[in-house]
Amino acid sequence: MSTDDTPYLLTPGPLTTSETTKQAMMRDWGSRDARFVALTARVRDRLTALAGGGEDHACVLLQGSGTFAVEAMLGTLVPPDGHCLILVNGAYGKRMARICEIIGRAHSVYETADDAPPDPARLDALLADDDTISHVAAVHCETTSGILNPIEDIAAVCEARGRRLLIDAMSSFGALPLDISKTPCDAIAASANKCLEGVPGIGFVIARRDALAASSANAPSLALDLYDQWRGFEDTGEWRFTPPTQVLAALDQALEEHAAEGGVAARGARYAANCRILVDGMRALGFETFLSDDLQAPIIVTFHAPSDPRFDFTRFYDALAARGYLIYPGKLTRSASFRIGCIGRLDEAVMRDVVVAIGEVVKEMGFDPAAGSLHASNGGPDGRKKVHHRDTENTEENKK
Amino acid sequence: MSTDDTPYLLTPGPLTTSETTKQAMMRDWGSRDARFVALTARVRDRLTALAGGGEDHACVLLQGSGTFAVEAMLGTLVPPDGHCLILVNGAYGKRMARICEIIGRAHSVYETADDAPPDPARLDALLADDDTISHVAAVHCETTSGILNPIEDIAAVCEARGRRLLIDAMSSFGALPLDISKTPCDAIAASANKCLEGVPGIGFVIARRDALAASSANAPSLALDLYDQWRGFEDTGEWRFTPPTQVLAALDQALEEHAAEGGVAARGARYAANCRILVDGMRALGFETFLSDDLQAPIIVTFHAPSDPRFDFTRFYDALAARGYLIYPGKLTRSASFRIGCIGRLDEAVMRDVVVAIGEVVKEMGFDPAAGSLHASNGGPDGRKKVHHRDTENTEENKK
Repeated sequence: MSTDDTPYLLTPGPLTTSETTKQAMMRDWGSRDARFVALTARVRDRLTALAGGGEDHACVLLQGSGTFAVEAMLGTLVPPDGHCLILVNGAYGKRMARICEIIGRAHSVYETADDAPPDPARLDALLADDDTISHVAAVHCETTSGILNPIEDIAAVCEARGRRLLIDAMSSFGALPLDISKTPCDAIAASANKCLEGVPGIGFVIARRDALAASSANAPSLALDLYDQWRGFEDTGEWRFTPPTQVLAALDQALEEHAAEGGVAARGARYAANCRILVDGMRALGFETFLSDDLQAPIIVTFHAPSDPRFDFTRFYDALAARGYLIYPGKLTRSASFRIGCIGRLDEAVMRDVVVAIGEVVKEMGFDPAAGSLHASNGGPDGRKKVHHRDTENTEENKK
Repeated sequence: MSTDDTPYLLTPGPLTTSETTKQAMMRDWGSRDARFVALTARVRDRLTALAGGGEDHACVLLQGSGTFAVEAMLGTLVPPDGHCLILVNGAYGKRMARICEIIGRAHSVYETADDAPPDPARLDALLADDDTISHVAAVHCETTSGILNPIEDIAAVCEARGRRLLIDAMSSFGALPLDISKTPCDAIAASANKCLEGVPGIGFVIARRDALAASSANAPSLALDLYDQWRGFEDTGEWRFTPPTQVLAALDQALEEHAAEGGVAARGARYAANCRILVDGMRALGFETFLSDDLQAPIIVTFHAPSDPRFDFTRFYDALAARGYLIYPGKLTRSASFRIGCIGRLDEAVMRDVVVAIGEVVKEMGFDPAAGSLHASNGGPDGRKKVHHRDTENTEENKK
């Protein structure tokens, strides 16, 4: 267990953060004072640099959760007469489609199964078929399953077809390589409390300045207007509306610690080691991962829930919570599952302890972890391909 | 000066908070864990009770600043075919009109001068004249000037005319009496970081359950949909999207300290004493308040900027900042001013020290604080009445 009675958070966020990051919140800031303006500028610059952005890019911080940043990105950067093709293989892709529906942006959906990345050739065909599609929106690492989507290939197709790409990099930013100078896109949305290991309360969008400049008056919201928020930062250095001052100070400290660890490469390597220990240990216990290793991002791992009637997720969760580890429920629509995160201020020692604790709970509850092998999600080993093809037909159905 | 080098914040927020409130942020929470669900329920119940709400009311917490909560309130509770009359005597009333314009809600404006409260008789006539007006939106304490608006009278008129009232109580909630059981209204919006003395990052709306229940699918936003957010809390106890966990923990502690101090009455009495010391001390130095004492809420005080050319706001601000006190710029459109807040973890001793520090700075800069007497905002002593009548004519002009 962590310090005092705080459990380790093996979730997609909020995460376990360092004591020094939390300590950075022990101060009150005047939100229009020069020192806070300087703090805001430093965080914006650091985030832009982390994304590989330069003079042509700007970081727009936004109050709220990551979803607030995604809604602001879609509502501001997709113009009212635009048409957004959304790549869906989980809940976060679906959420982007839902946002477009609510805010009244024309959109289509190219959906693949939870364990199937979108096919770049199919994307190319869809773009070739419909020249009204102005934007493509994609999720880098889909937290629903933990799958890593081929964002570089997607970006290359979009660029070749002259369409603008918007990336939800919520659960990958800061740990998986994503360089805006090599992966052409208009914007990347992420948040403070995932791989950057800050505390929750701030999302952000790193965007091309020319895309922002062209987006005036697009947004169907005052609070979620990315253009106005950007102009506020550029014109005065201040946030338009009261910022979560302590959350920003924590993010600044978290970015300092991210750099000290060695940046994206080192952060990603630590998470990859965490993931390896977790997956190997769980497989040794008999659990089965939902994804094959080549599709798995080292962020969060989905395991099939054992079909053994002695397994019960709530009892399993509670027994692990009592040992100081909080895991996460599954979010797959087609099969019972649970998730364990590899991110946050966790290292190999913690991950080994987690596996030991899970082994103890398996014994205590007396279920067979391997009793999940028939849970394969989409009708067996070839399900991925079938669903992939079936779901691509949704593209027109979902058009609004 | 406060502990370490942190200045006292004499602003409308974020404010100076207690060490114990900040200390409550030194923990990581699993946002879907039972302990955080319990924390969320406790804060919601406490806020509802503070507003005098009971079984018929619910508190909906929202990520972001107060403006996010106000936009969510307007967008969700005013239906697409509604018509909202907005009472404006400062920037926050104007902001509500701007929100309605952006989100596409029909609205009218009844505007009075910054130093003139709306006239209940005039409001009554406006409602009598236009039965398409379904809602009235009003600001309790308008932070632009610090004026206290006659919210009970406004509520009585709305009730008699059968119109629904939405209150922006951002800068008054927790310090000035506002009892939803005696002041009929559909909803009150406020935030964690004003008179409740929490840290910024959470706004909230306390609303009638029947108004919430009738608001499904009204909101033109996913993130700012108050109905969906409410259903999330009611159905699962959880936030729909990642909550600012540490900010909520700080709010819970701040509410504990609010109760320990003696609730709204005691909090309001401390602020009133702070305000008295500030106003008396500033007048003794020669400064002039923008508002007469009968209109002044004990939240934030606007002073005329001296017309003496030796006065310069930035130098004045910096000299006070160097002494550990952050004041606030003015926001009046018609005259130069500055503001000093009375709220946050400040007491009479701090306020006396502030006045002493200002006296020192006046001497140091060598200006005459009384040289502001010709700055009266709206054309002299009778300006209030004139502007009041002129601006009411805007009602139809502003209709969308």
